[in-house]
Amino acid sequence: MNRIDKELQKLASFSATPNPSVTRIVYSEEDMEARAYFITLCENIGLKVRVDVIGNTFARWEGSQPDLAPVGTGSHIDAIPESGQYDGTVGVFGGLEAIRVLKESGYSPKRSIEILLFTSEEPTRFGIGCLGSRMLSGQLTPENAEKLIDTENNSLKQNLERVNFNTDLSSVKLPKNYYNAFVELHIEQGPILEAENLDIGIVTMIAAPSSLGVQIVGQGGHAGCVLMPKRKDAGCAAAEIALAVESIAQNSASDNTVATTGIFNIKPGAVNSIPKEAYLEIDLRDTFIETRDKALNDVQDKIKEISNRRGVTSNVKLLNCDPPAICAENLVNTVENVTKNLGYSYKKMISHAYHDSLFMAQICPTTMIFIPCRDGLSHHPDEYSSPEQIHKGVQTLALSLKALSE
Amino acid sequence: MNRIDKELQKLASFSATPNPSVTRIVYSEEDMEARAYFITLCENIGLKVRVDVIGNTFARWEGSQPDLAPVGTGSHIDAIPESGQYDGTVGVFGGLEAIRVLKESGYSPKRSIEILLFTSEEPTRFGIGCLGSRMLSGQLTPENAEKLIDTENNSLKQNLERVNFNTDLSSVKLPKNYYNAFVELHIEQGPILEAENLDIGIVTMIAAPSSLGVQIVGQGGHAGCVLMPKRKDAGCAAAEIALAVESIAQNSASDNTVATTGIFNIKPGAVNSIPKEAYLEIDLRDTFIETRDKALNDVQDKIKEISNRRGVTSNVKLLNCDPPAICAENLVNTVENVTKNLGYSYKKMISHAYHDSLFMAQICPTTMIFIPCRDGLSHHPDEYSSPEQIHKGVQTLALSLKALSE
Repeated sequence: MNRIDKELQKLASFSATPNPSVTRIVYSEEDMEARAYFITLCENIGLKVRVDVIGNTFARWEGSQPDLAPVGTGSHIDAIPESGQYDGTVGVFGGLEAIRVLKESGYSPKRSIEILLFTSEEPTRFGIGCLGSRMLSGQLTPENAEKLIDTENNSLKQNLERVNFNTDLSSVKLPKNYYNAFVELHIEQGPILEAENLDIGIVTMIAAPSSLGVQIVGQGGHAGCVLMPKRKDAGCAAAEIALAVESIAQNSASDNTVATTGIFNIKPGAVNSIPKEAYLEIDLRDTFIETRDKALNDVQDKIKEISNRRGVTSNVKLLNCDPPAICAENLVNTVENVTKNLGYSYKKMISHAYHDSLFMAQICPTTMIFIPCRDGLSHHPDEYSSPEQIHKGVQTLALSLKALSE
Repeated sequence: MNRIDKELQKLASFSATPNPSVTRIVYSEEDMEARAYFITLCENIGLKVRVDVIGNTFARWEGSQPDLAPVGTGSHIDAIPESGQYDGTVGVFGGLEAIRVLKESGYSPKRSIEILLFTSEEPTRFGIGCLGSRMLSGQLTPENAEKLIDTENNSLKQNLERVNFNTDLSSVKLPKNYYNAFVELHIEQGPILEAENLDIGIVTMIAAPSSLGVQIVGQGGHAGCVLMPKRKDAGCAAAEIALAVESIAQNSASDNTVATTGIFNIKPGAVNSIPKEAYLEIDLRDTFIETRDKALNDVQDKIKEISNRRGVTSNVKLLNCDPPAICAENLVNTVENVTKNLGYSYKKMISHAYHDSLFMAQICPTTMIFIPCRDGLSHHPDEYSSPEQIHKGVQTLALSLKALSE
C-alpha cells in the first residue's frame, strides 16, 4: 500500500463511529487526535507548523525566497456523522504527499509552499460551514464568531477553552494576498468525472450555497385525545415544508438547483404525543445566484403560507448565504498545462459542493483539482476514490505547486 | 394546600426536565425516587406494599374478609419527555387519598382495597405502552417481554438488573378475577368535560389503539452534489408518509379516528447531507375497530406506494394493535349512583386515550372515572386539573371503592 493510502486509512481510525463510516466533529477527541497525527507527519519531513487560535494549521516548506507570498494548498479533516474517508482528507494528506514527492525529486521551491488544514469545514457543530476559511478570509468577523453556539449550547470560545486553544479571535484573519496562489485537491463528490471516465476536474467556479434554520411551534397534546380538526401538529407542518423544499428545487429554472432538508427534529418525540415543535435545517445551492436566490425566496414564502394555513408559528433564520466564487484564470491554465503534460484526461467544471476555496478565493487567486469518486457518493460510508485516482490527483497537485512556486 | 395537591407537587419534582414540564421515564433515577416516595406514603397509613418483579406496586388495605377478591384502583406515574404533572399520577395518589378519606371516616371495608401503581404505561423506553398491565393481564407473555429492547439497546432484564429488581418474569401475571372490580381515576386528556362544564366522566369503552414503526432506507450523499432527479431522499419519503397518515385520519369515515407521527428521526442528520435513513413511529386509534383497522391498512398501503415511487425501501412493524375494552355495566352503574348522590354533574363517555384499564378489563370488571383538564391538554407541561376538580374525582372514587368493597 502507498504511503498516502496507509495514512488515510490510519486517519479514518480517528472516528466516533466504526469504519467504514467516519464521524469526526471539530474539536472532538477524534478531531484533536487526527490533528496531532497530521502535525507529527509534517514535522517528520521538516515542515514548520503554526496553529492559529481556532485550530487552522499551517505546515510550511520554506522557499529560497521566504519573503515572497507563499503558494498554499490544503483542505479539511472534519467529517459529518457517519460519512466517509475521503472528503477533505485527500486534500490535506495529498498536499503533504505532494510536498514529499517534490522534496524526493530534489526540487527546491523559490516561494514557500504551505499546507493548510482548515478548522470545521463541516457545519455539524456550529451550524455554519467553513468556519476556518470564513475567519481567515475575514468573511466571518471575530465579533460574529463569538456569537456562535454549538449543538450542545457551548460557544466557540468555550470549545476553544476545552481543547486548550487560545481564545483571542482577532489574530485569525489573513492579510489580502497572503498567498500568491491557493490550490485545493478534493474528491468531486459528484458523478461526472466517473461517468465520463476522466482523471482530473479543474474547477472554474464554485456554486453559491445557502442554508436556512426553521423553528416551528405548534400545539402538543395526547395523540389519542385531540381530534384531527383541532390539531396544530408542528411535525406535519415541518413535513409539508420539507416536501415544498424538494419540489421548489425540482421545478427551478436551473437544472443545478439542489435543496435538502438535512436536519428534521421534532419535540417531544414520543409515539403518543402530538409534535409541538419542529426544527429544520435546509441547504439550498445553485451555480447561478439568480435561480438560487429565487428558490430561497420561494422556500421562505412557502414556509409562511404553510404556517399560516396550519396555525403554527415559524421562525426562519438565514444561516448562511454566500456568493459563488470564480477561480483565477492563470491558476486554471497552470493546472491545465500540468494535466496535459502528465497525459491525464480532464475537464473544466463547476463545483456544486461548498469548499474552503470558496472563501480563499475572496483573498487570493484560487482553484481546485477534483478527482473522481465512486458513484459520485460523498458524506456516506461508501465514499471511495481508488489509490490510482488519488495518485493522479497528487501528481497533478505536486506539479502545479511546483509550477506556481518557481 | 390540600394533602394530595402537595403530594402531586412533590411528585412532579422527580423529573429529568425542569418543572412545569415533567420527564419521568420508567426505571430512570427519577422514576425510582418517585416510587420510593409513593411507597413511604402508603406505609405511613398502614398499607401493606408488595412490588412484583417488574415494579408493579400493590398497596393493600386489608378488609375484614381478606379471602374475598379485593377491589382495585390505581394508574401510573411514568411521564413521557416534557409532559405534565397529572396524567396517571392523579389516579395513583388519588387512590391513596381515597383510602385515607375512607379510613378517616371510620369506614372498614369487607373486601380488601388495593392501589396498583402500574409499571411503564408510557411507551417511551420500550416502544410499547402499558407494559405492567399487559403482563399482569397475560396479554404480554414473559417470553415476549424478554425480547423487548429499550431506546438504549438494553433488554427489559438488563433494566431490571440495573434497578435491582428480580428478573424472573413468570410471576407477574395475575389470576383471572384477581380483582372483584377495578376502577381507575384519570384526567380526561381531552376537551369534552371542560367544554360541557361537567365534573365527572364515567367511561363505558376504551378506544382501540395501534401503532406502527417504519424504517425507511434511501440513498445518502452530499447535499450539494447529487442533482434532484438522482435522489432517493429517505427524509422526504418519511415526510410524505407523515402527511399521508394525517390525511387518512382526517378522511376516515369515523370522526374519532386520530393518527399521529410522534417520532420522526433521520440519519445522518446534518444540514449538508441527504437523509439516507428515516425512522417513524405512528399512533393510530379509533373507538370503532372497523374504521381503525381500515385506516391502519390504508396507511400501510400508502407507505408501500410512496416507497415504490421514490425508490426507497420501507420496513413496517406493527408495534401494537389492541382491541377496544368494554367497561363493566355494574361498575358504571355503581359510579353513576355515587356521582348522583354527591350531586356532581357527569356524563358517560368513551376514552380515546390508552390506559392500563384497557388490559385490566381483560381479567376483571373494570371502569374509569375521568375529571376535566384545562383545554383538554395532556402530554404537555401546561396539563392541569384544579384542586377542586381533583377533589371531586377523589370523592367519587372513594365512595365507589366503598360501595364495591362493602
